[in-house]
Amino acid sequence: MAHFSRVYKIVIDAPAADHDRELSFWESAVGQPLPQFDYLEYHGAALHGQDFWLLTQRLGDGRAGVHLDIHTDDLPAEVGRLERLGAQRVRRVHSWWVMRGPAGLVFCVIPDPPGTLHEGNANRWG
Amino acid sequence: MAHFSRVYKIVIDAPAADHDRELSFWESAVGQPLPQFDYLEYHGAALHGQDFWLLTQRLGDGRAGVHLDIHTDDLPAEVGRLERLGAQRVRRVHSWWVMRGPAGLVFCVIPDPPGTLHEGNANRWG
Repeated sequence: MAHFSRVYKIVIDAPAADHDRELSFWESAVGQPLPQFDYLEYHGAALHGQDFWLLTQRLGDGRAGVHLDIHTDDLPAEVGRLERLGAQRVRRVHSWWVMRGPAGLVFCVIPDPPGTLHEGNANRWG
Repeated sequence: MAHFSRVYKIVIDAPAADHDRELSFWESAVGQPLPQFDYLEYHGAALHGQDFWLLTQRLGDGRAGVHLDIHTDDLPAEVGRLERLGAQRVRRVHSWWVMRGPAGLVFCVIPDPPGTLHEGNANRWG
């Protein structure tokens, strides 16, 4: 059965000590509010005029960094597909998977509601 | 005088030892070739169906990471705007500026040809 996926979000990961300044900077840099999510460590929004989201994530500590999120309408199928390409599962967080690519770069795979992804806005697999 | 800018590219920075595997992984992950640029350290393409580019950059060494690129039709104006928001210039590379945000995260500011950015696809400043 076919499934869909696409790269859809950039997430700026900021240690707690820097988070508020980083959030404020990016809101001003993109000229949009980045409201807080129900998962309170996240703020973000769809970028005006683009089919892409920018988020910040408040970390406990650690290094600032950026990661990307792949969205899919079939999480097990997409995780399996990426594993066959050489990525590894790191851990499950809420409804999504954190994975690691061949160079050790971490990214997330996020489930979207059925029907939101299609040939026009995503890649089809199988 | 008004100028425009937008976040437009994600760049996966991979140390030379990992670059080819990382490039191959992302080409398969997004289902698109990521051809090499004239600046040979870069490969990339516009993501199918989205107004956004994914690139890889072959580093000499160092850590794998991800950074984002802001595009603008007025490089000095945009760099000045971001400096007033708290970013710092790091160095000039080819035609663009590498900058650092408040948490130390590096990003790039890239000039686009005049007329390519407008109210529908970018943010207007001034």
